[in-house]
Parts: sequence; C-alpha cells; structure tokens
Amino acid sequence: MSILVVGSVAYDTVETPREKRERQLGGSASFFSIAMLGRGEVRCVGVVGEDFRQEDLDLLSARGADVSGIVRQAGKSFHWSGRYHDDMIERDTLATELGVFAEFRPEIPPAWKNSDYLFLANIHPALQALVLDEMTAPKLVALDTMNLWIETTPQELAAILKRVDVLLVNDSEARQLTGLRSLAQAATAIRGMGPSRVIVKKGEHGALFFGRDGVLAVPAIILDDVIDPTGAGDCFAGGFMGSLSQAGATRDSDDQVFRRAMLDGTVTASFCPEGFSVEGLLRIDDPAYAARLATLKSMMVP
Amino acid sequence: MSILVVGSVAYDTVETPREKRERQLGGSASFFSIAMLGRGEVRCVGVVGEDFRQEDLDLLSARGADVSGIVRQAGKSFHWSGRYHDDMIERDTLATELGVFAEFRPEIPPAWKNSDYLFLANIHPALQALVLDEMTAPKLVALDTMNLWIETTPQELAAILKRVDVLLVNDSEARQLTGLRSLAQAATAIRGMGPSRVIVKKGEHGALFFGRDGVLAVPAIILDDVIDPTGAGDCFAGGFMGSLSQAGATRDSDDQVFRRAMLDGTVTASFCPEGFSVEGLLRIDDPAYAARLATLKSMMVP
Repeated sequence: MSILVVGSVAYDTVETPREKRERQLGGSASFFSIAMLGRGEVRCVGVVGEDFRQEDLDLLSARGADVSGIVRQAGKSFHWSGRYHDDMIERDTLATELGVFAEFRPEIPPAWKNSDYLFLANIHPALQALVLDEMTAPKLVALDTMNLWIETTPQELAAILKRVDVLLVNDSEARQLTGLRSLAQAATAIRGMGPSRVIVKKGEHGALFFGRDGVLAVPAIILDDVIDPTGAGDCFAGGFMGSLSQAGATRDSDDQVFRRAMLDGTVTASFCPEGFSVEGLLRIDDPAYAARLATLKSMMVP
Repeated sequence: MSILVVGSVAYDTVETPREKRERQLGGSASFFSIAMLGRGEVRCVGVVGEDFRQEDLDLLSARGADVSGIVRQAGKSFHWSGRYHDDMIERDTLATELGVFAEFRPEIPPAWKNSDYLFLANIHPALQALVLDEMTAPKLVALDTMNLWIETTPQELAAILKRVDVLLVNDSEARQLTGLRSLAQAATAIRGMGPSRVIVKKGEHGALFFGRDGVLAVPAIILDDVIDPTGAGDCFAGGFMGSLSQAGATRDSDDQVFRRAMLDGTVTASFCPEGFSVEGLLRIDDPAYAARLATLKSMMVP
C-alpha cells in the first residue's frame, strides 16, 4: 500500500543533561517515514533548505521513503533547538527557526494523488487541508496537530477534522481541544468533530485508543535509558500507519486491526528515545522488534 | 483470611474547584478497610481523638472492619486539609494537624498477632517495624510509604523494607527511593532492597506490577468525572490485598494471583474519586464491580 506523508523535514539541536547534538536529522516526516519500517510505499512531501545534507535524504531513501516530493529551496532548513530537563520529559524550546518552512506550500506530485493512505503530520491545518484537497480517494486519513494550532487556528483545525478518520494528539491537547478534563469525555467530543477514532498519546504512560467498540490502553515499554525522546510521537504514528498499511486496513475496517496497529506504534516508538535523532530507529531489526512486541504483550496479560 | 492494617484513621478537609467538604472520614486505614469489600477479616489498628464520630467507627464496622484496635485518646484526631487544582491531580496541603497521631504507638491486640496478612500503611517506618515485630508469621507483608520517610528516615525505611514482600509506591517515590530515573531500573533496585514484588502507582495512568516473572501494566479506568481522588492509593491497596486474601495467596504464590489482584486494586480504586471521602466506595455493588472489571479487561485486549 502507498502512503503519503506531509510534514517537516528538519534539523534538531538537542541538549540533554548528558550530551548535546547539533543539527541532526529531525522533523515529523523524517521520523514517520523511517518508522514505517518499509511496511508501505512512503511518499514524503516537504521542503528543505540549501543546508540540508544529501546524506540525510539518502538515508530516508535507503529506508524506503520516496523523497522526490521533498523540494529544496533557497534558504535554511527548518531548525528546532531544545533542552531536556533531568526527567527527560519536560523540555524548553530554545529556538524555532522556520527557514524555508515559513513559506511552505505543499505540492503533491500528480502520480501521488491516488495514494492509499494520507498522514497529515503536525503542520498548519490550512496546509493540511490543501493536501487533502489534492487526494483522489484515500482509504484512510490520519492527522496530528498541536497546541499552537488549537489556540491560533481553531476554525481551520475544525474544518479539517471533519474530513479525518483518525486523530492523534497527546492528553493535554485532547483536553485543550475540547475544554474537557475527562479523557473519556474529550474523546467522545472529538469523535463528534469528525474522526471516528482517536488516539491519545501519553509518552512514558503509553497511549489510549478510542475506537468504535471501546477503549484500548497500551502501556509504553519501560526503557532502561532515555537518550533523546524527540520524535517518539511521530515514530508512534509511523509504526501505527505502517501496521494499517501492511494489513490493508481502511476506515471501514473493524477495531481489531487498529488495536494491533496500536501495539506496532508502541513498539516502534519505544526504540526512538534510545538514541539521538533517528539512531534508535535505525537499530530496529526483526529479532529486536519481535522481542519487544512479546514484552509489550506480556505487560498486558492480566 | 484475616488481615491486619495499621495506618491513619483521620478527618480530611478537602477543597476542590467545585466544592469544599470539612472533616470527613479519611485516613489510609479507613480507605483500605472499606476497599477490602469484605474479602477478608480486616483488623484495624490506629488511634483517634475525642472528636472522632462514633458513626464513622460504626461505618467501618458495618463494612466488615474490626475496629477494636482503634484506640480513642484525649486530644484531636489526625486532620489533613488540602486543596485540589483544576486538574484534580495536583494539590496543595493546607494543614496537617497530627493531633493524637503524633504520639501514636500501635498496640496489637494479642489475638490479632497471628493475622494471615499485614498491610503497613503509610506511617513512620519505625512504627511499621514495631507492628511487624509483633506478628507471629504473616503469609505476606505489604508496605506503603511516602517521600517524607524516604527523605527523613532512610535507614529505618531500609531496615523495614528488608522484611517486606510487596512495596507499593508511586512513580516519583520509586525514583526518589532509588535515585534512578528508569522505573525498570528502580524496580530492580527496590527488589534488591527486600520486597520481591513492587507496585508502582501512577494515578490516572494506572499502575505497574514488577513481579517475579515480568511486568504487568494495568491502565486506570477512565472516569467521566473526578470528585475527590483523596485515598485512591489506599483503595488500590485494599482492593489488591482483598483479592490476595480471597485467593489465599502467600509470598510463595506465583505471579498469576498478584496480576489478578492488580485488576481488583484498579477496579476498586476507580470508585474512590467518584465521591468525596469514602462515598464512591460505598456505592460499589456486585453489578457495578463486575461491569468495571469487564471494562478494564476490555481495555487490555490488543
């Protein structure tokens, strides 16, 4: 199955209590694409600047992503810089330099408009809508967003939500979007806004899936060490969509295939914090993946 | 099976964004005893002041607790006063008036020394040790503690931990006790201190069980409304120990019976925040319990 992802392809400068790494590969589309683990034909739409290293594009290609939709423009690549606290959860954003991303207008190559799936990573909801407008008939559309858009562009966000099948947000975003403290009530309210399924990501506490037939709670795998959690949410999305793609799921599939995809999202995301940038993801192989899936399942057997 | 619990029997004044309730029944031993749901012969050891209402002791008795080990002394009952933030998780302690609890020296009625189980609720570890010293041969000893004792009485806490089978703490306490950020490493370290099994309570994110044969993650049941979460951790402990009692478990039982007890602790605790004081617990009946257990299990089926 083919999947189109639109999002950021960026550089991150990450400082942790132990180490600092400058301008390493980041961005939602990058993490997502590698986290698909080749379980679908990934088509990346994005923009980079003149400073973007060819080796990083080559890495995405080597991991199965078609990067011909990533445009190179005059200027600098999107650059995020942040510092993690001792708990490796809280973080301060030190700088957000949009660079060429400021004027990003996604253009979908004609041959990609019939992609089976669409993942709208966290960008301006009006741009997400532009992309969705171009698609012919995706089997399933998933969307990520953030507090910035909930606060500043609520109408555009509401408009695109009506056309989306799965929303991925974190717990504070779910509450902010609905004004409801209870995640049960928030998920119900979000389903009233459009998405028939809602995923609430809770970082080290796992993720909740609000489906048609009830709720699934998936714990996070407990890691011995956290090096850099940046991108874990996008890795979850990549693992989740990769699982749906492999199963040939559509918006009409029953919850079972989505529940399984929650496990794959969780397992995939668990590798991300074990290295800087995409390094943890690159260490995934079949035995490591299978071992972690078995661990996760054993954590859920009462 | 018989279970001896030693802890606070107290009054709580609780203020939430919506309502304030003064001097309502609280204390770890109170919540714990009612949360046992009659699944064992509960023997309460504690102290109250002259102000303690007979009707509150009668309520504990009516719910199956033997309160003949609760001594009434001259002075005021232990009184905690706190205010919850809008998120109904964060709270500020406004007052802690120890009253007669300040000089509490637990005395175990001779006939209770052979109790099958012992639950040492969150009190000074030296007092916990005094109680344990009096017991003849409990089948299983569980202990709760808090940041105060981790900080101020680390040696007494270390001494009692060596003699305990199950430790119940929250995630921040597990990290504080061990100095380890990873809960996996923290649990391993705690098991090296004595308890062969560790439960890490995470409030709305559920609880983790670190047993002999691996980890179980139990999500919290997602509530529509939170009225007052005070005591939920003690209710978890009561539900957990009630389940072990009903199953006749010992420290040598295999993990399976403890995993089941994790579900019972979670289900029982879920009723607590739905009312002030013990009101939510008092609404538990068989159909409500069974429905919630079914919900919890469905949340764990991938």
